[in-house]
Amino acid sequence: MREMKLGLFFAPGGHHLAAWRHPDAYPNGFSFQSYISAAQTAERGLFDMVFVADVFSLTPDGMRADSFRFEPITLLSALAVATSKIGLVATATTSFNEPYNVARKFASLDHISGGRAGWNIVTSSSPLEAFNFGLEEHLNHAERYRRAHEFVEVVRGLWDSWDDDAIAIDKTEGIFFDPAKMHMLNHKGAHYRVRGPLSLPRSPQGHPILVQAGSSEDGRNLAAEFAEVIFTIQRDLAEAQAFYADVKAKVAAFGRDPGHALIMPGVLPIVGRTRHEARDRYEQLQALIHPQAGLAALSRTLGTDLTGVDIDGPLPEIRSEKLSETRAMGMVETARRDGLTVRQVYERLVVSKGHRQVVGTAADIADTLQEWFEAGGADGYNIMPAMMPNGLTDFVELVVPELQRRGLYRRAYRGNTLRDHLGLPRPADLAAPVSREQATVRAR
Amino acid sequence: MREMKLGLFFAPGGHHLAAWRHPDAYPNGFSFQSYISAAQTAERGLFDMVFVADVFSLTPDGMRADSFRFEPITLLSALAVATSKIGLVATATTSFNEPYNVARKFASLDHISGGRAGWNIVTSSSPLEAFNFGLEEHLNHAERYRRAHEFVEVVRGLWDSWDDDAIAIDKTEGIFFDPAKMHMLNHKGAHYRVRGPLSLPRSPQGHPILVQAGSSEDGRNLAAEFAEVIFTIQRDLAEAQAFYADVKAKVAAFGRDPGHALIMPGVLPIVGRTRHEARDRYEQLQALIHPQAGLAALSRTLGTDLTGVDIDGPLPEIRSEKLSETRAMGMVETARRDGLTVRQVYERLVVSKGHRQVVGTAADIADTLQEWFEAGGADGYNIMPAMMPNGLTDFVELVVPELQRRGLYRRAYRGNTLRDHLGLPRPADLAAPVSREQATVRAR
Repeated sequence: MREMKLGLFFAPGGHHLAAWRHPDAYPNGFSFQSYISAAQTAERGLFDMVFVADVFSLTPDGMRADSFRFEPITLLSALAVATSKIGLVATATTSFNEPYNVARKFASLDHISGGRAGWNIVTSSSPLEAFNFGLEEHLNHAERYRRAHEFVEVVRGLWDSWDDDAIAIDKTEGIFFDPAKMHMLNHKGAHYRVRGPLSLPRSPQGHPILVQAGSSEDGRNLAAEFAEVIFTIQRDLAEAQAFYADVKAKVAAFGRDPGHALIMPGVLPIVGRTRHEARDRYEQLQALIHPQAGLAALSRTLGTDLTGVDIDGPLPEIRSEKLSETRAMGMVETARRDGLTVRQVYERLVVSKGHRQVVGTAADIADTLQEWFEAGGADGYNIMPAMMPNGLTDFVELVVPELQRRGLYRRAYRGNTLRDHLGLPRPADLAAPVSREQATVRAR
Repeated sequence: MREMKLGLFFAPGGHHLAAWRHPDAYPNGFSFQSYISAAQTAERGLFDMVFVADVFSLTPDGMRADSFRFEPITLLSALAVATSKIGLVATATTSFNEPYNVARKFASLDHISGGRAGWNIVTSSSPLEAFNFGLEEHLNHAERYRRAHEFVEVVRGLWDSWDDDAIAIDKTEGIFFDPAKMHMLNHKGAHYRVRGPLSLPRSPQGHPILVQAGSSEDGRNLAAEFAEVIFTIQRDLAEAQAFYADVKAKVAAFGRDPGHALIMPGVLPIVGRTRHEARDRYEQLQALIHPQAGLAALSRTLGTDLTGVDIDGPLPEIRSEKLSETRAMGMVETARRDGLTVRQVYERLVVSKGHRQVVGTAADIADTLQEWFEAGGADGYNIMPAMMPNGLTDFVELVVPELQRRGLYRRAYRGNTLRDHLGLPRPADLAAPVSREQATVRAR
């Protein structure tokens, strides 16, 4: 049976732009305890993983609630101890890190968590971030992705520094590991020179899961070559199907099994016990959007200061070079096509960061998740609760049982690692006879 | 009452070179569970902190048991959840990291642990490490320390990005933080350009504790200017007193209170219920040193391949430019002065990484710890159990009660943060009226 995969996309107060203002939302917006309880709730809901995004800067906007964030790897490592089954996926950029450090952190997290680590590979594009790393501006898009490509190759190589059975302790002889089972990387590429080996044994999953989230052409190619989970923004089924087909074909073209690259669009669900209740909850949240906060969020998304525009007039012309993100381009296109006002753009699109919003009963939400899942639009979903903690507990208590009744979702974890949950093979070590898929990959 | 401070210096199987070969030593040498239980035992012993060192490379020597190590920040973040009081000090190098990343990781750990984080500032000197970061060789010593100095200033500046009361959530008005309480760093120095602000609120301790461990002249100056805890290798009281007096005077010269820079030499204790038992345990460990492992460890320490030398002959001439570390220079001096053979050098010095070994009953060990503590040689000790787990449990169950009986050591934690344990003041935020000490520091 093909099983739907679910991730919890962390956001302290909720993903809806104005959720934090709701009386029931986590009041503090920044407490480690709230992350622990969210991760434990998601684990109770048998989710495959939790996912934490990352940004290396902060917009000095006092009306924005998502300004503060824990450093992802410290957060997930702490959560590893507070949970026992759920996967732990953190974002780490290839732009401001060294591959040796990234390889080591995720291998360490994989050891500490008993095989539950995943790395969301991103490149960084915001000039605000560059300013924190001594850079005046970012590399261009293609160059960023060339570096990312080499970066990932180095990280994977470092993860294979040791065969699985390299540690062979013989106290009597004084032997700790077998040097013949150690592999120097000796990588000398255009951007990185890394000798290796990594100073950790091979980790429980062999390689932590590789995740990718960019939807540009470069992003899709990186995903197709490496990613085992792909997060994406898809707001309508036809587009989701086109994306799904395109990426799976690209995966196959790289000699990989398309079943080993799971596509998980983001979904912001608002669940009610009745449709009326769901609609009511949605409208409560919409009413909390301060126009100034909505406009500021739209300005940031589009890279264009919209201060002073008539929010009930049409979206002004946006210079296309400002639209560095696929997400932003999609929003402008939708606004044009549907003739949306500025207010409608932020209310309908920005409020969920461009992601699909679904509002209804558990059955309604299960219907649409099932539809995409069965129609070649998704292998699972990255769930973005509108408000925390209720948005998540409602999903776990109402939607998950509905998905289980329909035979679409597990009733218990059947393994201990994130690879087990996702049904992904464990990459063999360098000593193993290679599978055809690995041979293709290694040959490149 | 002046109280002795204690840290646990982590080493999975123990700090004695051959401990891992002992039948009672942790058999695996690399298990997260063993770190959890060590941290919990140290917390039971009311230790101020645990401390994890770091190296970015691995010597391909199968007879070496300390080759593998968790990435420090993932390790300590996970331990934060498994403990509740003990301080968590991790090493992070200024050589292969960006200041923004270091500031963020330790601030995040400080939040997650409720104010228990400390950063051990090091610069990296090993060429093996440089090879993992695209560098052919390291910067020279003085240049490394100039960078380190600026690096620390940037990190401290980022930790002050927010006043303590900057988050002031008003759900009704839609206000999350007060932009007037945010401070851009706008640092433009010789080595780093960092704008800020940090994307985390000010952490529970204001600043995580700053720790320093180098004993060279450059190292001492860095310590004197910034460090609140200083780890050091001191094998005899007269030298320890000289070091203590020199560093405290340097601290005062920087306008700081010498009581706010705690000096903690490393000590490798071997405790027995009788002197005979202690001596016996020590000799058992010494007998486990494989000559090849002893020689290899000495070769690494001195940066000189000693393969083939007569281990029962005198230590050959070592070219002084090979001795990059104060530790190594000290060993060569001691060997010359005391006329040690090669075997004696590794048996007496290398076996404990140059640190002082004390062998005896709980009373004997308390005597010597008390002597240095009262004679201006130490404010506390970084305890390096010879073998794990027994070396630590013996210390906690035998030596700690003896220190308590003598009124030298706490009988309960009196606070929740590492600053509370160490009796160190919390740095005020930028909005606070500055103390004279802070004014002196800020004026530079």
